[in-house]
Amino acid sequence: MKGNVIVGQSGGPTAVINSSLAGVYKTALERDFNKVYGMRYGIQGFIDEQYVDLSDYIKNELDLELLKRTPSAFLGTCRYKLPGIHEDKAIYERIFALLDKLDIEVFIYIGGNDSMDTIRKLSDYALLTGAKQKFVGCPKTIDNDLAITDHTPGFGSAAKYIATSTKEVICDALGFSYKKKNVNIIEIMGRNAGWLTGAAALSEGEDCQGPDLIYLPERPFDIDKFVNKVENLLKEKDVVVAVVSEGIRTAEGKYVCEFTSGSESVDAFGHIQMTGTAAYLADVVKQRLGCKTRAVELSTLQRSAAHLASKIDVDEAFAVGGATVKAADEGSTGVMVVIDRVSDDPYQSTTGVYDVHRIANDEKVVPSEWINEEGDYVTEEFLDYVRPLIQGHYNPMMVTGLPRHLSINQKDYHGLGWSRHIQKS
Amino acid sequence: MKGNVIVGQSGGPTAVINSSLAGVYKTALERDFNKVYGMRYGIQGFIDEQYVDLSDYIKNELDLELLKRTPSAFLGTCRYKLPGIHEDKAIYERIFALLDKLDIEVFIYIGGNDSMDTIRKLSDYALLTGAKQKFVGCPKTIDNDLAITDHTPGFGSAAKYIATSTKEVICDALGFSYKKKNVNIIEIMGRNAGWLTGAAALSEGEDCQGPDLIYLPERPFDIDKFVNKVENLLKEKDVVVAVVSEGIRTAEGKYVCEFTSGSESVDAFGHIQMTGTAAYLADVVKQRLGCKTRAVELSTLQRSAAHLASKIDVDEAFAVGGATVKAADEGSTGVMVVIDRVSDDPYQSTTGVYDVHRIANDEKVVPSEWINEEGDYVTEEFLDYVRPLIQGHYNPMMVTGLPRHLSINQKDYHGLGWSRHIQKS
Repeated sequence: MKGNVIVGQSGGPTAVINSSLAGVYKTALERDFNKVYGMRYGIQGFIDEQYVDLSDYIKNELDLELLKRTPSAFLGTCRYKLPGIHEDKAIYERIFALLDKLDIEVFIYIGGNDSMDTIRKLSDYALLTGAKQKFVGCPKTIDNDLAITDHTPGFGSAAKYIATSTKEVICDALGFSYKKKNVNIIEIMGRNAGWLTGAAALSEGEDCQGPDLIYLPERPFDIDKFVNKVENLLKEKDVVVAVVSEGIRTAEGKYVCEFTSGSESVDAFGHIQMTGTAAYLADVVKQRLGCKTRAVELSTLQRSAAHLASKIDVDEAFAVGGATVKAADEGSTGVMVVIDRVSDDPYQSTTGVYDVHRIANDEKVVPSEWINEEGDYVTEEFLDYVRPLIQGHYNPMMVTGLPRHLSINQKDYHGLGWSRHIQKS
Repeated sequence: MKGNVIVGQSGGPTAVINSSLAGVYKTALERDFNKVYGMRYGIQGFIDEQYVDLSDYIKNELDLELLKRTPSAFLGTCRYKLPGIHEDKAIYERIFALLDKLDIEVFIYIGGNDSMDTIRKLSDYALLTGAKQKFVGCPKTIDNDLAITDHTPGFGSAAKYIATSTKEVICDALGFSYKKKNVNIIEIMGRNAGWLTGAAALSEGEDCQGPDLIYLPERPFDIDKFVNKVENLLKEKDVVVAVVSEGIRTAEGKYVCEFTSGSESVDAFGHIQMTGTAAYLADVVKQRLGCKTRAVELSTLQRSAAHLASKIDVDEAFAVGGATVKAADEGSTGVMVVIDRVSDDPYQSTTGVYDVHRIANDEKVVPSEWINEEGDYVTEEFLDYVRPLIQGHYNPMMVTGLPRHLSINQKDYHGLGWSRHIQKS
């Protein structure tokens, strides 16, 4: 009889992070592990003995399918950097005592760069002390900034949401363009890597003009040059759409969004106002060019819009989840599962494993040759890379008109009815 | 042989405004009208002789289905208030000369309150002058603030998008709640009517805790009381979610979003910063309570997210479009088509016609008894009213991973390829 598996989720969530959790669960049961535990709020919660038995929540195949369609971290997540082994040995002793107590053989951590650092440290500690547990990382991040793997689960769905929303924003803007020009600025997540921002270009096609300008954080951003470009575009057309990363910086390295908070922007309470990159640029364009502007910030929706997840992404997230358990069961530790692209057209991919020491803390940005010379758009090669990852659609399971999710809190829900807040009038 | 039909779109767009256009087109052909013209940019464009023959764009049933799934105003829209007949008779003479030139028998205008005012004035002018044309209004607005009709096409889809996005934002927020509390404020459209803001409450159910507080513009908003409520909620729970209308005002009638721009909020360029209601409140909560906050503004996405349109809404929008042509063909003029709710469960509705003089410029707000006593949530009756309208789903037609739309600009598109902006690297 095999022992148990424990799985945790860490860092910013994605639309498909729970599909990886479902993959871990299913493969662990298929490979005859005894129980599958879930850490609540990643390693941070686990240190406080916060964990659940996943069989209390995933009771059948329908639950498993719902889990694949549930956004954000089902188990809860954390942003917690494990101290080095020599900095705080006690915390490692505590973690491994807990792992022994729960008879854990396999430890899976679903996350990004910081999470792979956790896998590295725990597997190193296990090797140093001769502990039996295997530690395997499962890649996840909408930012697509993990090294070695062709791409990360979560990226494709966020890219699909961004491209779809960009199309819809452009439709909206074009409708209002008669005898008044308008400039629309869409702000996308990804502080240092422009993968998601570039994905907005996928909106261009037979039925959509696409954005006019795309600014990735990989290149310095020049506010005056940007305003001049918008001004020139407005001479030719009525609707201008620019897509910017939240992380664009000037040549001096100052974030564009810092311009506002660094200024005398103080409200009635004497508090400094924070505003986003797009809101700031929309204001600059409005003031300098005198045209109507609109800033659209996709905010957390771009990482949690499971209702528009890409099928390729959901399936790959599920596959890499399963591959982590397989890798551990076959003896690997201190590794992360990676996705290898076998071909572009037809798109095919497989999973592999890779030494986590080679991956941790190494941020993958968009290659310079995939950004155009002007630094205001992505190239065809960029789009050829991204396009396969947004393909296909998982229909949400609709209940009373809304996508149904699996909720770890649902055991607390008391039957039908809408009693908590709502009163009869 | 019958003459021709002309149809225009006006005001803020919705996810289903083109489904009404499709309904007008199909019924006009079925009833043997000769041509169906579309005004570009509503009456404003029409005055400048901007119109198209819709058969150039809707060539087959597939195009018609795409049109039903295309967000925003396919023909373009305007915000243009026709002057009174005695203020500017020349403009009426110009419009009717154009209608005669195009052999128009039926004039359909898809829009909200201002658009119905246009129908009223044009039909009055036709009666005064003995002109042959019939003028019929087709209701449309995400705000649901039109009188007489049970609800307006466009509202249900926006409500579905808002409830879905609220669920996703709550999922995201709950994942991050370990040992740090967070407050999330979602801002919804509807300056004077809280129908859409209240619809966020639909997110509550077996799998979602729903918002904690909902503030409609129908009630005065007290910032101190709001912060106190959030503070008390944070004693019991880790994640607080408030949903606010963009139009909430203090008892003195000042918009909450004015607090920022009315202050000394000046950027490096000496410009006054504009920021939204949610952003302002998130900042106040952060400063006063010291917790992590996030503002999410659904922006234009809530009126253009055709990928998540409600089937009831798409079908009703199509039906009212058809009903306008039928009404005119049967001799009605100066009327708007309305939706009558026949029953709640099972939900059934029919269309009727109503004198546009009784409708124009009359804004329907949420009844006082559908808001709770505290003024911070909606009642069960409110939800029973809205819930049927978000039911069912039209699958988007996905092409290369994205929802395909019908575009009036597509004739200009030069074949396959992505040549306009994109260069090879």
